[in-house]
Amino acid sequence: MRTSQTVEVTGHLMDNGILSRVLDDIRDHGGDYVIDRFDVGHEAHDPSRARITVQAEDEAALERLLMRLQTRGVNQLDPGEAATATADRDGVLPEGFYATTNLDTRVRLGGAWYEVENPEMDCGLVVLESPDARPRVRTVPMSDVRAGMRVVVGAAGIRVTVPAPGPGDTSSTDDPFGDRPQVVLVRQVADGMRQAREQGKRLLWVAGPGVVHTGAAPALTALIGAGFVDTLFAGNALATHDIESALYGTSLGVDLTMSQGLEHGHEHHVRAVNTVRRAGSIAAAVADGTIASGIMHALVTHRKRFVLVGSVRDDGPLPDVHTDVVEGQRAMREEIDGVGYCLMVATQLHSVATSNILPASVPVVCVDIDPATVTRITDRGASRGRGIVTDVGLFLEQLALELVPDYRRS
Amino acid sequence: MRTSQTVEVTGHLMDNGILSRVLDDIRDHGGDYVIDRFDVGHEAHDPSRARITVQAEDEAALERLLMRLQTRGVNQLDPGEAATATADRDGVLPEGFYATTNLDTRVRLGGAWYEVENPEMDCGLVVLESPDARPRVRTVPMSDVRAGMRVVVGAAGIRVTVPAPGPGDTSSTDDPFGDRPQVVLVRQVADGMRQAREQGKRLLWVAGPGVVHTGAAPALTALIGAGFVDTLFAGNALATHDIESALYGTSLGVDLTMSQGLEHGHEHHVRAVNTVRRAGSIAAAVADGTIASGIMHALVTHRKRFVLVGSVRDDGPLPDVHTDVVEGQRAMREEIDGVGYCLMVATQLHSVATSNILPASVPVVCVDIDPATVTRITDRGASRGRGIVTDVGLFLEQLALELVPDYRRS
Amino acid sequence: MRTSQTVEVTGHLMDNGILSRVLDDIRDHGGDYVIDRFDVGHEAHDPSRARITVQAEDEAALERLLMRLQTRGVNQLDPGEAATATADRDGVLPEGFYATTNLDTRVRLGGAWYEVENPEMDCGLVVLESPDARPRVRTVPMSDVRAGMRVVVGAAGIRVTVPAPGPGDTSSTDDPFGDRPQVVLVRQVADGMRQAREQGKRLLWVAGPGVVHTGAAPALTALIGAGFVDTLFAGNALATHDIESALYGTSLGVDLTMSQGLEHGHEHHVRAVNTVRRAGSIAAAVADGTIASGIMHALVTHRKRFVLVGSVRDDGPLPDVHTDVVEGQRAMREEIDGVGYCLMVATQLHSVATSNILPASVPVVCVDIDPATVTRITDRGASRGRGIVTDVGLFLEQLALELVPDYRRS
Amino acid sequence: MRTSQTVEVTGHLMDNGILSRVLDDIRDHGGDYVIDRFDVGHEAHDPSRARITVQAEDEAALERLLMRLQTRGVNQLDPGEAATATADRDGVLPEGFYATTNLDTRVRLGGAWYEVENPEMDCGLVVLESPDARPRVRTVPMSDVRAGMRVVVGAAGIRVTVPAPGPGDTSSTDDPFGDRPQVVLVRQVADGMRQAREQGKRLLWVAGPGVVHTGAAPALTALIGAGFVDTLFAGNALATHDIESALYGTSLGVDLTMSQGLEHGHEHHVRAVNTVRRAGSIAAAVADGTIASGIMHALVTHRKRFVLVGSVRDDGPLPDVHTDVVEGQRAMREEIDGVGYCLMVATQLHSVATSNILPASVPVVCVDIDPATVTRITDRGASRGRGIVTDVGLFLEQLALELVPDYRRS
Repeated sequence: MRTSQTVEVTGHLMDNGILSRVLDDIRDHGGDYVIDRFDVGHEAHDPSRARITVQAEDEAALERLLMRLQTRGVNQLDPGEAATATADRDGVLPEGFYATTNLDTRVRLGGAWYEVENPEMDCGLVVLESPDARPRVRTVPMSDVRAGMRVVVGAAGIRVTVPAPGPGDTSSTDDPFGDRPQVVLVRQVADGMRQAREQGKRLLWVAGPGVVHTGAAPALTALIGAGFVDTLFAGNALATHDIESALYGTSLGVDLTMSQGLEHGHEHHVRAVNTVRRAGSIAAAVADGTIASGIMHALVTHRKRFVLVGSVRDDGPLPDVHTDVVEGQRAMREEIDGVGYCLMVATQLHSVATSNILPASVPVVCVDIDPATVTRITDRGASRGRGIVTDVGLFLEQLALELVPDYRRS
Repeated sequence: MRTSQTVEVTGHLMDNGILSRVLDDIRDHGGDYVIDRFDVGHEAHDPSRARITVQAEDEAALERLLMRLQTRGVNQLDPGEAATATADRDGVLPEGFYATTNLDTRVRLGGAWYEVENPEMDCGLVVLESPDARPRVRTVPMSDVRAGMRVVVGAAGIRVTVPAPGPGDTSSTDDPFGDRPQVVLVRQVADGMRQAREQGKRLLWVAGPGVVHTGAAPALTALIGAGFVDTLFAGNALATHDIESALYGTSLGVDLTMSQGLEHGHEHHVRAVNTVRRAGSIAAAVADGTIASGIMHALVTHRKRFVLVGSVRDDGPLPDVHTDVVEGQRAMREEIDGVGYCLMVATQLHSVATSNILPASVPVVCVDIDPATVTRITDRGASRGRGIVTDVGLFLEQLALELVPDYRRS
Repeated sequence: MRTSQTVEVTGHLMDNGILSRVLDDIRDHGGDYVIDRFDVGHEAHDPSRARITVQAEDEAALERLLMRLQTRGVNQLDPGEAATATADRDGVLPEGFYATTNLDTRVRLGGAWYEVENPEMDCGLVVLESPDARPRVRTVPMSDVRAGMRVVVGAAGIRVTVPAPGPGDTSSTDDPFGDRPQVVLVRQVADGMRQAREQGKRLLWVAGPGVVHTGAAPALTALIGAGFVDTLFAGNALATHDIESALYGTSLGVDLTMSQGLEHGHEHHVRAVNTVRRAGSIAAAVADGTIASGIMHALVTHRKRFVLVGSVRDDGPLPDVHTDVVEGQRAMREEIDGVGYCLMVATQLHSVATSNILPASVPVVCVDIDPATVTRITDRGASRGRGIVTDVGLFLEQLALELVPDYRRS
Repeated sequence: MRTSQTVEVTGHLMDNGILSRVLDDIRDHGGDYVIDRFDVGHEAHDPSRARITVQAEDEAALERLLMRLQTRGVNQLDPGEAATATADRDGVLPEGFYATTNLDTRVRLGGAWYEVENPEMDCGLVVLESPDARPRVRTVPMSDVRAGMRVVVGAAGIRVTVPAPGPGDTSSTDDPFGDRPQVVLVRQVADGMRQAREQGKRLLWVAGPGVVHTGAAPALTALIGAGFVDTLFAGNALATHDIESALYGTSLGVDLTMSQGLEHGHEHHVRAVNTVRRAGSIAAAVADGTIASGIMHALVTHRKRFVLVGSVRDDGPLPDVHTDVVEGQRAMREEIDGVGYCLMVATQLHSVATSNILPASVPVVCVDIDPATVTRITDRGASRGRGIVTDVGLFLEQLALELVPDYRRS
């Protein structure tokens, strides 16, 4: 029997194509709709608001569709109360679980709204109760589900909010990145980083080995020294090529083959990895003087944090690398809190992985010479990710010139 | 004190640029050289042979250089005897270890030559002795080194052989792939697969989610059914998208966003993963009828093997996925023996990972719409990898038309 | 003094982002706006309609802005009467000329509306009067303006219409190209071509040398023979490589260097060009038996039309090539009338040139392995262009299998 | 009847793969060979020398093959005397004409060797005789052939020389571009330009509209002012976008659509073109103050030369644009003499066109963000072209910082 529900969505609906995607979703699920009301903002920065009655062929189909729509920021007009079910085994969510977005999310339980503490995409929502405190709601990735957890099911009682563009921020309405030359973009990124730092936020970098191959290691090292890197997410390759360069000299560490990202067939890097494995850790190799320069050296000596997660193509890997990717994701999650700006440079794998766990409210800039990588990061629904297709080496050089006093001027 | 050694290299030295790379290596290491002799083949298929005296500033530098050259197939004229050292701790090779290529390799111990049983790149060589049998020599990846292992150090006593082009094979001298239209290439790949199968060799596929997104799953499923896939290497994404498509129907499983490889922001796939996790394994979900079609279904029902290895961007992942990448590499290595043809389709990560462990003697064809991926796989020194930049969907469609009787003709 | 005008736009405003671009234009011109009304379609295929009051700082600025908006399909609510000015010199449009779109356009003169006969982008509108007939309005490219012509100035009295998606057509609302596997896309293109032919429309192809390099010449030749090519637009390179292949055999005509589009350094093609120059024309070389096969041979023997236009990198060129690009554009314009379907294959230069002169109402499919070329053609405001990123060789092979009975089956 | 000839080739035969291509050519032509002698250089910079006896099935086939080989720098051991034939009609070379390379070339006539005055690819060689002076030999493009010209036929009596790497130059043996980070590459290009200028050579730039879109116009303008641009080759698009930006302000001139190279659908540029057409020429529009800034303004005010050649996709075009491409090529040829360094930036069409007419001895650097464009320019046999895949905007910014005192420091 056909059934329906009225939903609402607010935001820059026309600019970012959200409404179009919403309507596509409805059709894809075999549903139908009537647009009851559409209020468009009069001015450029005014948000629009749509009210839509959605129909589906039965309750189950409607439920699936409503959950789907919520990943676009579409809420039920009458949210109702969240329903929950108990996980019956470790690592498995209950049937009909609510799949999260990384938007700011609230859950209604017993008539009260609770903020989800750590918005993250494609997780479940677990309700943590304690006898003497109010309940808390957190996202939980599938692999961290434990039997007995109380998990939200269905789309009722949930409300998500698309982030409003802040001052100095980059809404898609008047995107300063779409129509500015590269030199101006560098300055805007520098401003964004300074601003986040002034607000006491942490700066997260995600970087691939291209940073080393394009000769940008000195620039990144200077930025670490000047306090513009709080945490680095990377893989075995970035750290290995950086350390190889520190151990054997620049001329060996940068060649054309490597710049194409070929980690193998170049035995120097396995010797570098072996040397660090012998030392026990990157920090130990820095401490005993084996590693005396480079990005990893700067992170260790300036007491900055880094999370290295392995991949199936790694050699070694370095002793600091999380070889279990689920453990690696957990380690990354622990670094997310307090991040106020995220720069993703020359890596698709780790950029996607970071986008998965980063709240939509954190500004993200993705820099890569490959447009496909940039599109993949920035084309993620309601996120605040912005992309710059450019040369990573020259970009970081300019960024260091902007941010680090006396860089290259000595 | 300057010291020198005379080395030899044989093969199609001019065609594949090996000699040029060898001379570059010597200069890069601060060495010097005199070409003592250069015999060039008179006919197209004749190999050339060069004898070069290499100089370096001291014994240690010379040793490093000689090991480097051996990754190009350059052997010492007087090989001498292999030296060994004992690994003093787990996961660490001894100083000065010999870093392997994936070329056919022999080691001289006590005046006798021993074939390396499992050539693989960037490993150590371990000598396995038993009281009542002749010694065996195997490659060992760094992470599998155990204290007490006897490991080859230095470049003495080692001889590598660049694979000679076989009949029906593709030397770079008369590369049938460089100058043929796409339709002809499909036929040649089909012939290569038939030939390998007739010789009792196994067919290894390495595939990315692009196979599902381009609509090639029916073609690959048909090829599995017809016996042209013995083992599949892939990641969580291929299997998840394939199963998602089986569970929720094609129209949901293939959209433009996904075709750009975006695994997130599309909650269907996390429901698919959760469903399989509940079943316990892909095979269990096939057995209980949950998964009734698609690539993974075909592999299970035709009792073919697959190895899925995770990455840091995975959701879930599926219960069959190796979340530890080093464990995943071990599982892949166990499937390498007997492989006679390898097709790499629409994945850079897993293709590079497979190239790392595959002997250079196995013919490899890499098919991708992105030239960068193809170059990365085929530009690996002496390997027999060949690349085809084309549309994966149409390529597999044509391949199924060639190999599977009655495909699409019913 | 600030002044304003109320405008209207109708269509799938949210789906295709037109409204967003309209608002951007207003801001870019330093204007302001109030959205007076926004009626959104209730159903998927219902068009939306927006009424916007636009402000600018003075009349001149407003006029410029209104003309800009009309390139998006935005009309003045009260269109008024068109104003005209007389061109005062050859090749120059009067100040303030109305710059055309390729949308269906009507002009109001003396209270009556006149259809523009040949919509084309970035031209002027000339009013042709005769004493005994009603006036006609045509687009005129800048280079064809003659002193004394009466040309429309300003945006008043003009109304443009965004094409409505027809049956079997591809609106962006439910784009069958975005989410379908390649094999299905081939079938849809075949259907579109059959349909246009059944309606008595002509089929226009625009092709680059990649058609020859990917081995697709036999497929295109078969399609010509079967009546699926009425006119071909190309450059010197396609024709030369095709003829070179006909003269010297396939093995010479297709090599990897050429497949990268390198026309020089390969002296065979200059010999081919010289041979045709000696014959006097391609048709003459076909008539005297010099050219006995290939695409150009098929066009000549089946009496199909072709327009070849030169470029600065050409050798020769062939005698049939228009070396003057403005003359070449004129020759192309003469072939546009009656075209009902246009396939653009493996050429960016000629595809852009054709898009410039083709009315927005003609369905266009652009096929290329390079996503940048496809985006450039399909990302053109209100046009009905659709893109397929795929291998040209395999695509045309499949298309010939769909459309030509017994192709490859003999 | 099989016939043979002995040929010689000298140079860095292994490094650049020339010998491999030579042997491929022989096989492609159905020929056979014996390598009589191969002398390899002992040291890195020593050239190698090969002597090869080439066989073909008859004299005509041998002649074709020998002419083909000469495009690789392969000369006959016994050169003999050049044969000539008389062109019998305008625009057509005699049968069997010698097709030129752009290598340094000498022709033997009456026992004496004559230097070809203007090496250019894919032309004929015309012998100019005068009663009272020694003969001269010049290349003549097919379209400039006139009946009665005496043209060299066959491969006898011709000797070509592959350029030897000069000091500070970039041989492929130790290519400073292959393995250096981007910041270093900028410095090397700056050095090459300074050096050429000090030697009294002229600096040729070839540029596409990407220079304007990436915001590099101020950098290029500064380089013109500082004397680092003597001649600019470009198309209608670069000049139009630059002038549009000068007329209407930067914010209008740079948007994302344009940065993808879309010249149409953006009516500002047609207004800019019309304005210049009204003025009569770019120089006139500068003189009357209409154009007051930008690249074209700088060229005119600093009395530098430019050649603009049209293409089929042009609007307008500007009055200075050569609409006839053959005329355009002639205008370009007149600027080649004395060029000592050529920088090609962000244009494939004009870069290929320039490569066609530039002697192989002129150092060329091609800068583009698209690897395919760079490969196409640098992959041209024996030329001295080097490629840099990078962001054009940031590259020119850094180049101006290197070369122009006080750039951006005021």
